[in-house]
Amino acid sequence: MAVGLSEPVNILPVTGIELASVASGIKSSGRDDLVLIKISPGSSCAATFTKNSFCAAPVILAKKHLSQTLPRALIINSGNANAGTGEKGLKDAVQSCEWVARAIQCNAEEVLPFSTGVIGEPMPMEVLNSGVKLVSQQLSVDNWMVAAQGIMTTDTVAKAISKQISVAGKLITITGIAKGSGMICPNMATMLAFICTDAKVEDAYLQYCLDEAVAKSFNSITVDSDTSTNDACILIASGASESALINAGSTDAIIFSQAINEVCLHLAQAIVRDGEGATKFVSVNVLDALSLSEARDVAYTIAHSPLVKTALFASDPNWGRILAAVGNAGVENLIAENVSIYLNDICIVSGGCRDAAYTEEAGQRVMDQSEITVKVILGRGDVSTTIWTTDLSHDYVTINSDYRS
Amino acid sequence: MAVGLSEPVNILPVTGIELASVASGIKSSGRDDLVLIKISPGSSCAATFTKNSFCAAPVILAKKHLSQTLPRALIINSGNANAGTGEKGLKDAVQSCEWVARAIQCNAEEVLPFSTGVIGEPMPMEVLNSGVKLVSQQLSVDNWMVAAQGIMTTDTVAKAISKQISVAGKLITITGIAKGSGMICPNMATMLAFICTDAKVEDAYLQYCLDEAVAKSFNSITVDSDTSTNDACILIASGASESALINAGSTDAIIFSQAINEVCLHLAQAIVRDGEGATKFVSVNVLDALSLSEARDVAYTIAHSPLVKTALFASDPNWGRILAAVGNAGVENLIAENVSIYLNDICIVSGGCRDAAYTEEAGQRVMDQSEITVKVILGRGDVSTTIWTTDLSHDYVTINSDYRS
Repeated sequence: MAVGLSEPVNILPVTGIELASVASGIKSSGRDDLVLIKISPGSSCAATFTKNSFCAAPVILAKKHLSQTLPRALIINSGNANAGTGEKGLKDAVQSCEWVARAIQCNAEEVLPFSTGVIGEPMPMEVLNSGVKLVSQQLSVDNWMVAAQGIMTTDTVAKAISKQISVAGKLITITGIAKGSGMICPNMATMLAFICTDAKVEDAYLQYCLDEAVAKSFNSITVDSDTSTNDACILIASGASESALINAGSTDAIIFSQAINEVCLHLAQAIVRDGEGATKFVSVNVLDALSLSEARDVAYTIAHSPLVKTALFASDPNWGRILAAVGNAGVENLIAENVSIYLNDICIVSGGCRDAAYTEEAGQRVMDQSEITVKVILGRGDVSTTIWTTDLSHDYVTINSDYRS
Repeated sequence: MAVGLSEPVNILPVTGIELASVASGIKSSGRDDLVLIKISPGSSCAATFTKNSFCAAPVILAKKHLSQTLPRALIINSGNANAGTGEKGLKDAVQSCEWVARAIQCNAEEVLPFSTGVIGEPMPMEVLNSGVKLVSQQLSVDNWMVAAQGIMTTDTVAKAISKQISVAGKLITITGIAKGSGMICPNMATMLAFICTDAKVEDAYLQYCLDEAVAKSFNSITVDSDTSTNDACILIASGASESALINAGSTDAIIFSQAINEVCLHLAQAIVRDGEGATKFVSVNVLDALSLSEARDVAYTIAHSPLVKTALFASDPNWGRILAAVGNAGVENLIAENVSIYLNDICIVSGGCRDAAYTEEAGQRVMDQSEITVKVILGRGDVSTTIWTTDLSHDYVTINSDYRS
């Protein structure tokens, strides 16, 4: 049911990065649930994690390991979040890193663990142990697509993208994968996204690129307003290409940063397009705000409104609900008479009330489409923002009242 | 489908207050849609209105009239919100007050208009004109129940309550009615609530009582996080009883204030019990917070989480979603290890992770009930709060994708 999203094609290997995916048995469905990403020595790494106060054991440990050394491997299980599991969960995460370290011959601190799935269940450690042995024997540079499938939970379509750019005459490759479908309102990162490049990138600039890209992609989407306990986004630069080192301030740096932006935006939008129960892909575009926080408040109030989302599901141009949401966003001293609202290119509200030229037929023509832009012009300043979201459908309720996530 | 809510009984007249309700034709269903409440001269009045920036024309006008004089009549239509209607909407609201003033012989400024229903549609003024003539001929002190029915939109059960207390040996009566089922996350007041008493109450104290009661009732409930454009809560004291004047600081004042609290709480909870698609009535109780705003942030983050709400609908003791919501409430420096969570009397989380003694069976026994308390102990301070909400069901999606509200 994903909106305008098909299986990824032309996913390219990244020199210096090997991957594997197996069905270890964590998922009762028998689908792949354990992915290993092996990173060549000397790679640099940027990372960003959930701001949920109850962050999961693997998130706590990954942050700790990153503060000690650079990673040589990422171990990702889908099916069990290892969140809300206390001391035992942390011990289990340490143990899994030790198993991976032994299998690929590195230090446990050089392994970053990631988990996604049910919160609060103990990790099935025996199953994981066998899985680590199995997955470490199947590493290949060509396994990006199976890895993209292996990290899925309620996702219906794998999310992956490759991009090649030229840096000082040398071709470099960027390939990223992501997963996520519900509990999506990332704060600093999405559920799980892993992006690798063979470019050589200066450490601080790599983190800068990731932070910039995440702000405008994973941190600008919402399916259901719930920020997960396990969100993480990792950007690895193996440096295995022939390209020169990318430093802040150069033309190459701008090109590289732009490419990372595009990869993150594609993956973030893919998560929304595959949002639980989604039948619409909706861009909420807020213009002429006084500040970015004000613009984001308005955009998220619209995107989180169950009444707006159910109207979108019904393809009902019920613009009164959008107007009510704008008024409900907590913007101080908002002058209703200065606000305009558009559905795609159709003006529905001008001067704070229904536009004189608006017709229900024109609104209906927009609403019948599966991709819709809601544009709100606040008439207060010159700051704008865009976030992406879905509708609220019966399938969302069905998925989340049937699935123990 | 209302949860634990049946038709009101023993609703008592209030001396000095006459009511009537008719089907004027604003609602296409032919149900009652126009209610008139006539107030005896010399009555005092307290009021509170929506904080939505796009407040409706009748809200704007009612505030203006209240700043000029005391009301002699309330005219309430259900079916058309007269919101997002600009200058024309305001003129229509003025016109309706003039018609009422002529019918009951008072000034137009002594009439307060209220509307609830579809946003953005022009008010059918001819129909309203005939309706006002009709409704003004049917006034009676005994019409509280028909008035409670006349203000309903998607409500399935009328909401009304009466309470009698003794003030210095004299019996006084308080009767209130309310409506609301969707677009319920009041900020300063609920959709519409009208409470009348025959007590004599000092003006400033009457407003104090209403503000206090509304904070802990209508402003502590949420069905779907959407604050309406039309919320209003009005408290009238006709003074027609034999009771002495109630002033701040007296024992009588405390008793009176407590009774107003109880009436508001009953009506607010009735709105939640009859929330759109509700199958559960949920109290969210947050204890040991540092501040009231922190406690309310945690309570509302839980109550607005679609994942928590769908788990409640499924009767699934999926406590991980509650934990994730607590972590997602933006509480600064929250120490996960100090947090405990209970479902009724069952401890599900202690020390920030699943309680050692918790069993799925115990959680299931609570979740199978239709009235559930989620209790979160933050372990930070001594401030507590309670808010009330519903689950998120298929019927909510059906109602809001079928009904043009």
